[in-house]
Amino acid sequence: MKTLSMLLLAIGFVFSNHSAKAADAEEDIRDLLTDQTDAWNRGNLEAFVKPYAEDCTFVGKQVVKGRNKVLAQYRSRYPTPAAMGKLSFRNLEVREAGERIAIVIGEWRLERPASAGGAVGGIFSLVFKDVDDEWRIVLDHTS
Amino acid sequence: MKTLSMLLLAIGFVFSNHSAKAADAEEDIRDLLTDQTDAWNRGNLEAFVKPYAEDCTFVGKQVVKGRNKVLAQYRSRYPTPAAMGKLSFRNLEVREAGERIAIVIGEWRLERPASAGGAVGGIFSLVFKDVDDEWRIVLDHTS
Repeated sequence: MKTLSMLLLAIGFVFSNHSAKAADAEEDIRDLLTDQTDAWNRGNLEAFVKPYAEDCTFVGKQVVKGRNKVLAQYRSRYPTPAAMGKLSFRNLEVREAGERIAIVIGEWRLERPASAGGAVGGIFSLVFKDVDDEWRIVLDHTS
Repeated sequence: MKTLSMLLLAIGFVFSNHSAKAADAEEDIRDLLTDQTDAWNRGNLEAFVKPYAEDCTFVGKQVVKGRNKVLAQYRSRYPTPAAMGKLSFRNLEVREAGERIAIVIGEWRLERPASAGGAVGGIFSLVFKDVDDEWRIVLDHTS
């Protein structure tokens, strides 16, 4: 009986540890997305792109590869604080898709005066991967 | 020495087995995408949506959840063989993102006569997951 109890305890631990990790993953990723919008709204594009993996892929109107190119694209599209406007994310859904891989789907919106291009928005999907204990965006598809 | 050789052999086997699996994954997924375009071009939407996971998410102009709803959306958007046109994928890139998780990026194009809406196309990204030894699309973002 003792062996069985120990076994059940061990199994219970593995499962509770797993769901704790999943909950942590979602919380960590939500925090990271909040940090990203904060960075954007401070006009800090370097901090905004920090969670992108160095070899990330960004799918927008075209496919762009690598964090540096993603940063260059943001800089060229949003050259001024007015063009950057105020970013917000809505209806975020975070779910684990595998071992330390998570998918995020959400809506984005930029509030801007008409003189700076007006409000724009759309939907994005992100694939996050845990790289050396840091969540990194390996794929961003924004439409 | 014999123990060391055996160990190196074992390590070598694990690595070659891993890369063989990765190559298999890419080949399996490319085959599946070819089967999908074939199904589309035969006008068989049921076969086209077969690789979608039952609880998949499709991100287009809106977010649609579940294979049945994805099928219903395709049926309503492409009600006739003429509207379905001829589908092709180009510039496909398949890469493993984790343990039995793969990301595919590619361009899609529908050739159609002007009377059926004309040619359309765009970019898609897919997240595939190995579910019980079958590759399933858990996320499709098409723009």
